[in-house]
Amino acid sequence: MLSNPVYGSLKSNIDRLGHCLCLGLDPDIDKIPSYYEKSISGLDMFLIDVIEASKDQVIAYKPNISFFEAYGIEGLHLLEKCRARTPSHVPFILDAKRGDIGNTAVKQATYLFDYFGADAITVNPYMGHDNVSPFLDYKDKLIFVLALTSNPGSNDFETLKLESGKRLFEEVIEKTNTWSKNNVGFVVGATQTDLVQARSLTSFPFLIPGVGHQGGRYVDAIKGSDANGVSIINASRALLYSWDSPKNLDQTINRLISTIIS
Amino acid sequence: MLSNPVYGSLKSNIDRLGHCLCLGLDPDIDKIPSYYEKSISGLDMFLIDVIEASKDQVIAYKPNISFFEAYGIEGLHLLEKCRARTPSHVPFILDAKRGDIGNTAVKQATYLFDYFGADAITVNPYMGHDNVSPFLDYKDKLIFVLALTSNPGSNDFETLKLESGKRLFEEVIEKTNTWSKNNVGFVVGATQTDLVQARSLTSFPFLIPGVGHQGGRYVDAIKGSDANGVSIINASRALLYSWDSPKNLDQTINRLISTIIS
Repeated sequence: MLSNPVYGSLKSNIDRLGHCLCLGLDPDIDKIPSYYEKSISGLDMFLIDVIEASKDQVIAYKPNISFFEAYGIEGLHLLEKCRARTPSHVPFILDAKRGDIGNTAVKQATYLFDYFGADAITVNPYMGHDNVSPFLDYKDKLIFVLALTSNPGSNDFETLKLESGKRLFEEVIEKTNTWSKNNVGFVVGATQTDLVQARSLTSFPFLIPGVGHQGGRYVDAIKGSDANGVSIINASRALLYSWDSPKNLDQTINRLISTIIS
Repeated sequence: MLSNPVYGSLKSNIDRLGHCLCLGLDPDIDKIPSYYEKSISGLDMFLIDVIEASKDQVIAYKPNISFFEAYGIEGLHLLEKCRARTPSHVPFILDAKRGDIGNTAVKQATYLFDYFGADAITVNPYMGHDNVSPFLDYKDKLIFVLALTSNPGSNDFETLKLESGKRLFEEVIEKTNTWSKNNVGFVVGATQTDLVQARSLTSFPFLIPGVGHQGGRYVDAIKGSDANGVSIINASRALLYSWDSPKNLDQTINRLISTIIS
Protein backbone atom coordinates (compact mmCIF):
# COMPACT_ATOMS: atom_id res chain seq x y z
CA MET A 1 0.00 0.00 0.00
CA LEU A 2 1.52 3.32 -1.05
CA SER A 3 0.83 6.57 0.70
CA ASN A 4 0.47 8.49 -2.55
CA PRO A 5 -2.42 10.56 -3.99
CA VAL A 6 -2.41 8.93 -7.46
CA TYR A 7 -2.41 5.50 -5.86
CA GLY A 8 -5.31 6.69 -3.72
CA SER A 9 -7.33 7.74 -6.78
CA LEU A 10 -6.68 4.42 -8.52
CA LYS A 11 -7.72 2.46 -5.44
CA SER A 12 -10.88 4.50 -5.00
CA ASN A 13 -11.83 4.15 -8.70
CA ILE A 14 -11.33 0.37 -8.50
CA ASP A 15 -13.53 0.16 -5.40
CA ARG A 16 -16.24 2.27 -7.03
CA LEU A 17 -16.25 0.57 -10.45
CA GLY A 18 -15.53 -2.99 -9.37
CA HIS A 19 -12.89 -3.56 -12.04
CA CYS A 20 -9.27 -2.56 -12.81
CA LEU A 21 -9.56 -1.53 -16.45
CA CYS A 22 -7.58 1.41 -17.75
CA LEU A 23 -8.20 2.78 -21.24
CA GLY A 24 -5.12 3.04 -23.45
CA LEU A 25 -5.32 6.10 -25.69
CA ASP A 26 -3.34 5.16 -28.81
CA PRO A 27 -4.86 7.39 -31.49
CA ASP A 28 -4.36 6.27 -35.06
CA ILE A 29 -6.04 7.99 -38.01
CA ASP A 30 -6.00 4.73 -39.99
CA LYS A 31 -8.00 2.92 -37.30
CA ILE A 32 -10.66 5.39 -36.17
CA PRO A 33 -14.27 4.42 -36.93
CA SER A 34 -15.50 5.39 -40.39
CA TYR A 35 -17.89 7.93 -38.81
CA TYR A 36 -14.89 10.27 -38.25
CA GLU A 37 -12.96 12.24 -40.84
CA LYS A 38 -9.53 10.72 -41.43
CA SER A 39 -7.60 13.79 -40.32
CA ILE A 40 -6.15 15.37 -37.18
CA SER A 41 -9.45 17.11 -36.53
CA GLY A 42 -11.31 13.82 -37.02
CA LEU A 43 -8.94 12.28 -34.50
CA ASP A 44 -9.67 15.15 -32.12
CA MET A 45 -13.45 14.58 -32.41
CA PHE A 46 -12.89 10.85 -31.86
CA LEU A 47 -10.87 11.49 -28.67
CA ILE A 48 -13.48 13.97 -27.36
CA ASP A 49 -16.19 11.32 -27.79
CA VAL A 50 -14.08 8.53 -26.27
CA ILE A 51 -13.14 10.50 -23.15
CA GLU A 52 -16.64 11.87 -22.65
CA ALA A 53 -18.20 8.38 -22.93
CA SER A 54 -15.63 6.57 -20.78
CA LYS A 55 -14.63 9.00 -18.04
CA ASP A 56 -16.91 7.49 -15.39
CA GLN A 57 -16.24 3.92 -16.48
CA VAL A 58 -12.46 3.40 -16.44
CA ILE A 59 -10.03 3.68 -13.54
CA ALA A 60 -7.39 5.61 -15.54
CA TYR A 61 -6.27 6.68 -19.00
CA LYS A 62 -2.97 5.55 -20.44
CA PRO A 63 -2.11 7.68 -23.48
CA ASN A 64 1.00 6.35 -25.22
CA ILE A 65 2.84 9.54 -26.18
CA SER A 66 4.38 7.89 -29.27
CA PHE A 67 0.99 7.65 -31.00
CA PHE A 68 0.58 11.41 -30.59
CA GLU A 69 4.20 12.16 -31.57
CA ALA A 70 3.70 10.28 -34.83
CA TYR A 71 1.60 13.30 -35.93
CA GLY A 72 4.35 15.72 -34.92
CA ILE A 73 3.55 18.92 -33.08
CA GLU A 74 -0.12 18.74 -34.13
CA GLY A 75 -0.29 15.39 -32.37
CA LEU A 76 1.23 16.83 -29.20
CA HIS A 77 -1.45 19.54 -29.20
CA LEU A 78 -3.99 16.68 -29.24
CA LEU A 79 -2.29 15.18 -26.20
CA GLU A 80 -2.58 18.52 -24.38
CA LYS A 81 -6.30 18.56 -25.16
CA CYS A 82 -6.74 14.98 -23.88
CA ARG A 83 -5.05 15.97 -20.64
CA ALA A 84 -7.32 19.01 -20.28
CA ARG A 85 -10.45 16.92 -20.87
CA THR A 86 -9.53 14.20 -18.34
CA PRO A 87 -11.30 14.70 -14.98
CA SER A 88 -8.92 15.07 -12.05
CA HIS A 89 -10.15 11.89 -10.33
CA VAL A 90 -9.09 9.74 -13.30
CA PRO A 91 -5.28 9.39 -13.29
CA PHE A 92 -3.56 10.31 -16.55
CA ILE A 93 -0.76 7.73 -16.99
CA LEU A 94 1.54 9.02 -19.70
CA ASP A 95 3.22 5.99 -21.24
CA ALA A 96 6.50 7.51 -22.40
CA LYS A 97 9.14 4.90 -21.52
CA ARG A 98 11.71 7.62 -20.80
CA GLY A 99 15.02 7.48 -18.96
CA ASP A 100 18.46 9.05 -19.43
CA ILE A 101 21.45 10.22 -17.37
CA GLY A 102 20.51 12.30 -14.33
CA ASN A 103 20.61 15.86 -15.71
CA THR A 104 18.66 14.76 -18.80
CA ALA A 105 16.08 12.75 -16.86
CA VAL A 106 15.35 15.98 -14.95
CA LYS A 107 14.35 17.55 -18.30
CA GLN A 108 12.18 14.54 -19.14
CA ALA A 109 10.40 14.82 -15.80
CA THR A 110 9.74 18.52 -16.51
CA TYR A 111 8.18 17.63 -19.87
CA LEU A 112 5.98 14.77 -18.65
CA PHE A 113 4.94 15.96 -15.19
CA ASP A 114 5.11 19.77 -15.37
CA TYR A 115 4.32 20.47 -19.02
CA PHE A 116 1.79 17.71 -19.76
CA GLY A 117 0.58 17.36 -16.18
CA ALA A 118 0.86 13.57 -16.12
CA ASP A 119 -0.15 11.88 -12.87
CA ALA A 120 2.00 8.85 -13.63
CA ILE A 121 4.53 7.81 -16.27
CA THR A 122 6.47 4.77 -17.47
CA VAL A 123 10.28 4.64 -17.24
CA ASN A 124 12.85 2.28 -18.80
CA PRO A 125 15.29 1.03 -16.11
CA TYR A 126 18.21 -0.05 -18.35
CA MET A 127 20.49 2.89 -17.41
CA GLY A 128 20.06 2.40 -13.66
CA HIS A 129 19.43 4.50 -10.57
CA ASP A 130 20.33 8.05 -11.68
CA ASN A 131 18.16 7.43 -14.77
CA VAL A 132 15.09 6.79 -12.55
CA SER A 133 15.88 9.00 -9.58
CA PRO A 134 14.81 12.44 -10.97
CA PHE A 135 11.33 11.02 -11.58
CA LEU A 136 11.14 9.62 -8.05
CA ASP A 137 11.68 13.13 -6.68
CA TYR A 138 8.08 13.82 -7.78
CA LYS A 139 6.67 12.20 -4.66
CA ASP A 140 3.01 12.84 -5.51
CA LYS A 141 3.28 11.07 -8.89
CA LEU A 142 3.54 7.38 -9.76
CA ILE A 143 6.48 5.97 -11.72
CA PHE A 144 5.90 2.63 -13.43
CA VAL A 145 9.23 0.97 -14.19
CA LEU A 146 9.36 -1.51 -17.09
CA ALA A 147 9.99 -4.98 -15.68
CA LEU A 148 8.61 -7.78 -17.88
CA THR A 149 6.88 -6.34 -20.92
CA SER A 150 4.11 -7.89 -23.02
CA ASN A 151 6.01 -8.19 -26.31
CA PRO A 152 7.87 -11.18 -27.84
CA GLY A 153 11.21 -9.33 -27.45
CA SER A 154 10.86 -9.53 -23.66
CA ASN A 155 12.70 -12.87 -24.03
CA ASP A 156 15.81 -11.23 -25.46
CA PHE A 157 17.09 -9.46 -22.34
CA GLU A 158 14.39 -9.12 -19.64
CA THR A 159 14.28 -12.84 -18.85
CA LEU A 160 18.03 -13.51 -19.05
CA LYS A 161 19.28 -15.48 -16.11
CA LEU A 162 21.90 -13.72 -14.02
CA GLU A 163 24.87 -15.29 -12.28
CA SER A 164 22.94 -14.74 -9.03
CA GLY A 165 20.21 -17.11 -10.20
CA LYS A 166 17.68 -14.30 -10.60
CA ARG A 167 16.37 -13.19 -13.95
CA LEU A 168 16.97 -9.60 -15.09
CA PHE A 169 13.34 -8.48 -14.57
CA GLU A 170 13.41 -9.92 -11.03
CA GLU A 171 16.59 -7.96 -10.28
CA VAL A 172 14.94 -4.81 -11.72
CA ILE A 173 11.93 -5.26 -9.43
CA GLU A 174 13.97 -6.03 -6.32
CA LYS A 175 16.43 -3.18 -6.81
CA THR A 176 13.83 -0.59 -7.79
CA ASN A 177 11.71 -1.58 -4.78
CA THR A 178 14.43 -0.08 -2.59
CA TRP A 179 14.52 3.21 -4.57
CA SER A 180 10.83 3.98 -4.16
CA LYS A 181 9.69 7.13 -2.40
CA ASN A 182 6.18 5.75 -2.03
CA ASN A 183 5.74 6.22 -5.77
CA VAL A 184 6.99 3.16 -7.67
CA GLY A 185 5.03 0.59 -9.62
CA PHE A 186 5.99 -1.94 -12.31
CA VAL A 187 4.97 -2.72 -15.88
CA VAL A 188 4.37 -6.45 -16.38
CA GLY A 189 2.56 -7.76 -19.45
CA ALA A 190 -0.74 -9.65 -19.25
CA THR A 191 0.75 -12.11 -21.75
CA GLN A 192 3.43 -13.23 -19.26
CA THR A 193 3.02 -16.48 -17.35
CA ASP A 194 5.55 -15.05 -14.87
CA LEU A 195 3.11 -12.33 -13.81
CA VAL A 196 2.28 -14.13 -10.57
CA GLN A 197 6.00 -14.71 -9.85
CA ALA A 198 6.65 -10.99 -10.44
CA ARG A 199 3.88 -10.11 -7.96
CA SER A 200 5.56 -12.20 -5.28
CA LEU A 201 8.57 -9.85 -5.34
CA THR A 202 6.76 -6.62 -4.46
CA SER A 203 3.58 -5.16 -3.06
CA PHE A 204 3.78 -2.14 -5.37
CA PRO A 205 1.12 -1.53 -8.05
CA PHE A 206 1.32 -3.22 -11.45
CA LEU A 207 0.47 -1.59 -14.74
CA ILE A 208 -0.50 -4.52 -16.96
CA PRO A 209 -0.75 -3.99 -20.73
CA GLY A 210 -1.36 -6.66 -23.32
CA VAL A 211 -5.06 -7.48 -22.76
CA GLY A 212 -7.08 -7.91 -25.96
CA HIS A 213 -5.31 -7.70 -29.32
CA GLN A 214 -1.95 -8.70 -27.83
CA GLY A 215 -3.48 -11.93 -26.56
CA GLY A 216 -3.58 -11.38 -22.79
CA ARG A 217 -6.80 -12.04 -20.83
CA TYR A 218 -8.16 -9.86 -18.02
CA VAL A 219 -9.05 -12.88 -15.88
CA ASP A 220 -5.47 -14.13 -16.06
CA ALA A 221 -4.00 -10.69 -15.45
CA ILE A 222 -6.07 -10.20 -12.30
CA LYS A 223 -4.95 -13.54 -10.81
CA GLY A 224 -2.70 -13.28 -7.80
CA SER A 225 -3.50 -9.60 -7.47
CA ASP A 226 -2.45 -8.67 -3.97
CA ALA A 227 -5.33 -7.61 -1.74
CA ASN A 228 -3.18 -4.66 -0.62
CA GLY A 229 -1.84 -3.78 -4.04
CA VAL A 230 -3.43 -2.35 -7.11
CA SER A 231 -3.51 -3.67 -10.67
CA ILE A 232 -4.09 -1.30 -13.53
CA ILE A 233 -5.03 -3.51 -16.47
CA ASN A 234 -4.81 -1.71 -19.76
CA ALA A 235 -6.84 -2.29 -22.89
CA SER A 236 -6.24 -0.07 -25.90
CA ARG A 237 -7.41 -1.43 -29.25
CA ALA A 238 -10.16 -3.63 -27.75
CA LEU A 239 -11.91 -0.54 -26.35
CA LEU A 240 -10.90 2.16 -28.82
CA TYR A 241 -11.52 0.48 -32.13
CA SER A 242 -14.29 -2.06 -31.52
CA TRP A 243 -17.24 0.20 -32.35
CA ASP A 244 -18.33 2.31 -35.27
CA SER A 245 -20.79 5.01 -34.19
CA PRO A 246 -20.51 7.46 -31.27
CA LYS A 247 -24.28 7.09 -30.70
CA ASN A 248 -24.79 5.81 -27.14
CA LEU A 249 -21.04 5.31 -26.93
CA ASP A 250 -21.12 5.22 -23.13
CA GLN A 251 -23.37 2.13 -23.33
CA THR A 252 -21.16 0.54 -26.00
CA ILE A 253 -18.06 1.05 -23.84
CA ASN A 254 -19.92 -0.34 -20.84
CA ARG A 255 -20.72 -3.48 -22.86
CA LEU A 256 -17.13 -3.82 -24.12
CA ILE A 257 -15.79 -3.47 -20.56
CA SER A 258 -18.20 -6.19 -19.35
CA THR A 259 -16.99 -8.50 -22.12
CA ILE A 260 -13.30 -7.89 -21.36
CA ILE A 261 -13.59 -8.43 -17.61
CA SER A 262 -15.84 -11.48 -17.77
CA MET B 1 32.57 -0.98 -42.17
CA LEU B 2 28.90 -0.35 -42.90
CA SER B 3 27.51 0.22 -46.34
CA ASN B 4 25.30 3.08 -45.22
CA PRO B 5 25.08 6.74 -46.31
CA VAL B 6 25.14 8.23 -42.79
CA TYR B 7 28.14 6.10 -41.92
CA GLY B 8 29.72 7.35 -45.15
CA SER B 9 29.20 11.00 -44.16
CA LEU B 10 30.65 10.44 -40.70
CA LYS B 11 33.71 8.68 -42.14
CA SER B 12 34.26 11.42 -44.69
CA ASN B 13 33.90 14.19 -42.06
CA ILE B 14 36.41 12.42 -39.81
CA ASP B 15 38.89 12.11 -42.68
CA ARG B 16 38.47 15.77 -43.60
CA LEU B 17 38.61 17.22 -40.08
CA GLY B 18 41.11 14.84 -38.53
CA HIS B 19 39.06 14.31 -35.37
CA CYS B 20 35.91 12.47 -34.22
CA LEU B 21 34.15 15.21 -32.24
CA CYS B 22 30.41 15.54 -32.40
CA LEU B 23 28.64 18.53 -30.84
CA GLY B 24 25.88 17.68 -28.39
CA LEU B 25 23.06 20.21 -28.61
CA ASP B 26 21.55 20.29 -25.10
CA PRO B 27 19.98 23.76 -24.96
CA ASP B 28 19.35 25.15 -21.49
CA ILE B 29 18.16 28.71 -20.88
CA ASP B 30 19.87 28.74 -17.47
CA LYS B 31 23.27 27.98 -19.03
CA ILE B 32 23.44 30.08 -22.19
CA PRO B 33 26.08 32.83 -22.24
CA SER B 34 25.02 36.12 -20.65
CA TYR B 35 25.11 37.79 -24.10
CA TYR B 36 21.79 36.08 -24.93
CA GLU B 37 18.34 36.89 -23.56
CA LYS B 38 17.19 34.22 -21.10
CA SER B 39 14.13 33.20 -23.14
CA ILE B 40 13.13 30.83 -25.92
CA SER B 41 14.05 33.44 -28.50
CA GLY B 42 17.41 33.96 -26.78
CA LEU B 43 17.92 30.19 -26.96
CA ASP B 44 17.05 30.30 -30.64
CA MET B 45 19.65 33.02 -31.32
CA PHE B 46 22.20 31.01 -29.33
CA LEU B 47 21.54 27.88 -31.41
CA ILE B 48 21.73 29.83 -34.69
CA ASP B 49 25.16 31.16 -33.67
CA VAL B 50 26.42 27.77 -32.45
CA ILE B 51 25.42 25.90 -35.61
CA GLU B 52 26.70 28.63 -37.93
CA ALA B 53 30.08 28.73 -36.15
CA SER B 54 30.55 24.96 -35.83
CA LYS B 55 29.04 23.43 -38.97
CA ASP B 56 32.37 23.00 -40.76
CA GLN B 57 34.22 21.94 -37.61
CA VAL B 58 32.34 18.99 -36.11
CA ILE B 59 31.60 15.59 -37.64
CA ALA B 60 27.95 15.52 -36.47
CA TYR B 61 25.39 17.12 -34.18
CA LYS B 62 23.75 15.19 -31.38
CA PRO B 63 20.69 17.10 -30.13
CA ASN B 64 19.22 15.42 -27.05
CA ILE B 65 15.47 15.73 -27.65
CA SER B 66 14.76 15.89 -23.89
CA PHE B 67 16.41 19.30 -23.57
CA PHE B 68 14.05 20.66 -26.26
CA GLU B 69 11.01 18.84 -24.81
CA ALA B 70 11.62 20.51 -21.44
CA TYR B 71 10.32 23.72 -23.11
CA GLY B 72 7.24 21.94 -24.40
CA ILE B 73 5.98 22.53 -27.91
CA GLU B 74 7.99 25.77 -28.23
CA GLY B 75 11.11 23.69 -27.59
CA LEU B 76 10.15 21.20 -30.29
CA HIS B 77 9.80 24.07 -32.76
CA LEU B 78 13.40 24.98 -31.85
CA LEU B 79 14.45 21.42 -32.64
CA GLU B 80 12.80 21.68 -36.07
CA LYS B 81 14.76 24.88 -36.72
CA CYS B 82 18.04 23.22 -35.67
CA ARG B 83 17.34 20.40 -38.10
CA ALA B 84 16.61 22.87 -40.91
CA ARG B 85 19.85 24.78 -40.24
CA THR B 86 22.08 21.68 -40.19
CA PRO B 87 23.85 21.13 -43.53
CA SER B 88 23.10 17.78 -45.15
CA HIS B 89 26.72 16.56 -44.93
CA VAL B 90 26.68 16.85 -41.10
CA PRO B 91 24.65 13.94 -39.68
CA PHE B 92 21.88 14.94 -37.26
CA ILE B 93 21.93 12.29 -34.52
CA LEU B 94 18.71 12.66 -32.53
CA ASP B 95 19.42 11.32 -29.06
CA ALA B 96 15.95 10.14 -28.05
CA LYS B 97 16.54 6.79 -26.30
CA ARG B 98 13.25 5.43 -27.61
CA GLY B 99 11.94 1.87 -27.83
CA ASP B 100 8.55 0.18 -27.29
CA ILE B 101 6.56 -2.81 -28.55
CA GLY B 102 6.59 -3.22 -32.32
CA ASN B 103 3.50 -1.26 -33.39
CA THR B 104 4.49 1.61 -31.09
CA ALA B 105 8.14 1.66 -32.16
CA VAL B 106 6.83 2.15 -35.72
CA LYS B 107 5.23 5.40 -34.50
CA GLN B 108 8.46 6.46 -32.78
CA ALA B 109 10.41 5.88 -36.00
CA THR B 110 7.88 8.03 -37.89
CA TYR B 111 8.39 10.86 -35.39
CA LEU B 112 12.19 10.77 -35.31
CA PHE B 113 13.06 9.89 -38.90
CA ASP B 114 10.13 11.16 -40.97
CA TYR B 115 8.91 14.13 -38.95
CA PHE B 116 12.22 15.49 -37.59
CA GLY B 117 14.36 14.12 -40.41
CA ALA B 118 16.97 12.60 -38.10
CA ASP B 119 19.86 10.81 -39.81
CA ALA B 120 20.52 8.67 -36.76
CA ILE B 121 18.90 8.04 -33.37
CA THR B 122 19.55 6.29 -30.06
CA VAL B 123 17.42 3.33 -28.92
CA ASN B 124 17.08 1.59 -25.54
CA PRO B 125 17.38 -2.20 -26.00
CA TYR B 126 15.68 -3.38 -22.77
CA MET B 127 12.46 -4.59 -24.46
CA GLY B 128 14.30 -6.67 -27.07
CA HIS B 129 14.13 -7.33 -30.80
CA ASP B 130 10.66 -6.12 -31.80
CA ASN B 131 11.42 -2.92 -29.86
CA VAL B 132 14.46 -2.21 -32.11
CA SER B 133 13.33 -3.81 -35.37
CA PRO B 134 11.02 -1.03 -36.73
CA PHE B 135 13.95 1.40 -36.56
CA LEU B 136 16.24 -1.05 -38.39
CA ASP B 137 13.79 -1.05 -41.31
CA TYR B 138 15.11 2.44 -42.07
CA LYS B 139 18.16 1.08 -43.85
CA ASP B 140 19.63 4.46 -44.79
CA LYS B 141 19.67 5.67 -41.16
CA LEU B 142 21.91 4.74 -38.24
CA ILE B 143 20.51 3.28 -35.01
CA PHE B 144 22.75 3.57 -31.94
CA VAL B 145 21.71 1.02 -29.32
CA LEU B 146 22.50 1.82 -25.67
CA ALA B 147 25.09 -0.67 -24.44
CA LEU B 148 27.27 0.69 -21.62
CA THR B 149 26.29 4.25 -20.78
CA SER B 150 28.42 6.98 -19.21
CA ASN B 151 26.43 7.45 -15.99
CA PRO B 152 26.98 5.99 -12.49
CA GLY B 153 23.75 3.95 -12.80
CA SER B 154 25.32 1.89 -15.58
CA ASN B 155 26.51 -0.38 -12.74
CA ASP B 156 22.98 -1.23 -11.64
CA PHE B 157 21.92 -3.41 -14.59
CA GLU B 158 24.17 -2.93 -17.65
CA THR B 159 27.20 -4.58 -16.07
CA LEU B 160 25.37 -7.42 -14.29
CA LYS B 161 26.99 -10.77 -14.90
CA LEU B 162 24.78 -13.31 -16.62
CA GLU B 163 24.71 -17.04 -16.02
CA SER B 164 26.51 -17.39 -19.38
CA GLY B 165 29.51 -15.50 -17.98
CA LYS B 166 28.87 -12.46 -20.17
CA ARG B 167 27.77 -9.14 -18.78
CA LEU B 168 24.44 -7.68 -19.88
CA PHE B 169 25.97 -4.95 -22.11
CA GLU B 170 28.11 -7.60 -23.84
CA GLU B 171 25.01 -9.69 -24.53
CA VAL B 172 23.26 -6.56 -25.87
CA ILE B 173 26.15 -5.88 -28.26
CA GLU B 174 26.47 -9.49 -29.45
CA LYS B 175 22.75 -10.01 -29.98
CA THR B 176 22.12 -6.64 -31.64
CA ASN B 177 25.10 -7.23 -33.97
CA THR B 178 23.06 -10.01 -35.57
CA TRP B 179 19.99 -7.78 -36.05
CA SER B 180 21.78 -5.05 -38.01
CA LYS B 181 20.75 -4.19 -41.53
CA ASN B 182 24.00 -2.33 -42.11
CA ASN B 183 22.72 0.35 -39.77
CA VAL B 184 23.56 -0.46 -36.14
CA GLY B 185 26.00 1.25 -33.80
CA PHE B 186 26.40 1.28 -30.03
CA VAL B 187 26.43 3.88 -27.26
CA VAL B 188 29.35 3.34 -24.87
CA GLY B 189 30.40 6.04 -22.41
CA ALA B 190 33.84 7.67 -22.50
CA THR B 191 33.93 7.23 -18.73
CA GLN B 192 33.91 3.41 -19.03
CA THR B 193 37.14 1.46 -18.64
CA ASP B 194 35.38 -1.36 -20.51
CA LEU B 195 35.21 0.72 -23.69
CA VAL B 196 38.08 -1.24 -25.27
CA GLN B 197 36.49 -4.55 -24.27
CA ALA B 198 33.19 -3.40 -25.83
CA ARG B 199 35.03 -2.58 -29.07
CA SER B 200 36.39 -6.11 -29.25
CA LEU B 201 32.84 -7.44 -29.64
CA THR B 202 31.86 -5.54 -32.78
CA SER B 203 33.18 -3.55 -35.72
CA PHE B 204 30.12 -1.30 -35.74
CA PRO B 205 30.41 2.44 -34.98
CA PHE B 206 30.44 3.72 -31.41
CA LEU B 207 28.70 6.86 -30.23
CA ILE B 208 30.70 7.88 -27.16
CA PRO B 209 29.25 10.48 -24.79
CA GLY B 210 30.73 11.56 -21.48
CA VAL B 211 33.75 13.63 -22.60
CA GLY B 212 34.26 16.86 -20.64
CA HIS B 213 31.95 17.63 -17.74
CA GLN B 214 31.11 13.97 -17.15
CA GLY B 215 34.80 13.21 -16.65
CA GLY B 216 35.68 11.23 -19.80
CA ARG B 217 38.75 12.19 -21.88
CA TYR B 218 38.88 12.27 -25.68
CA VAL B 219 42.31 10.61 -25.76
CA ASP B 220 40.99 7.67 -23.72
CA ALA B 221 37.79 7.42 -25.75
CA ILE B 222 39.69 7.22 -29.02
CA LYS B 223 41.93 4.37 -27.78
CA GLY B 224 41.36 1.04 -29.44
CA SER B 225 39.25 2.69 -32.13
CA ASP B 226 39.03 0.15 -34.92
CA ALA B 227 40.74 1.29 -38.11
CA ASN B 228 37.68 0.07 -40.04
CA GLY B 229 35.14 1.41 -37.60
CA VAL B 230 34.06 4.90 -36.67
CA SER B 231 33.93 6.62 -33.29
CA ILE B 232 31.63 9.56 -32.76
CA ILE B 233 32.86 11.23 -29.60
CA ASN B 234 30.35 13.65 -28.17
CA ALA B 235 31.01 16.79 -26.17
CA SER B 236 28.04 18.90 -25.08
CA ARG B 237 28.67 21.27 -22.19
CA ALA B 238 32.42 21.63 -22.88
CA LEU B 239 31.69 23.13 -26.31
CA LEU B 240 28.30 24.78 -25.77
CA TYR B 241 28.83 26.64 -22.55
CA SER B 242 32.56 27.42 -22.36
CA TRP B 243 32.43 30.83 -24.04
CA ASP B 244 30.61 34.08 -23.50
CA SER B 245 30.48 36.16 -26.70
CA PRO B 246 29.48 35.06 -30.21
CA LYS B 247 32.21 37.34 -31.63
CA ASN B 248 34.61 35.15 -33.65
CA LEU B 249 32.76 32.12 -32.30
CA ASP B 250 34.11 29.88 -35.07
CA GLN B 251 37.64 30.57 -33.81
CA THR B 252 36.60 30.03 -30.19
CA ILE B 253 35.05 26.66 -31.08
CA ASN B 254 38.16 25.75 -33.06
CA ARG B 255 40.27 26.46 -29.96
CA LEU B 256 37.94 24.48 -27.67
CA ILE B 257 38.04 21.51 -30.06
CA SER B 258 41.86 21.62 -30.12
CA THR B 259 41.91 21.58 -26.32
CA ILE B 260 39.49 18.66 -26.06
CA ILE B 261 41.26 16.46 -28.59
CA SER B 262 44.80 17.18 -27.38
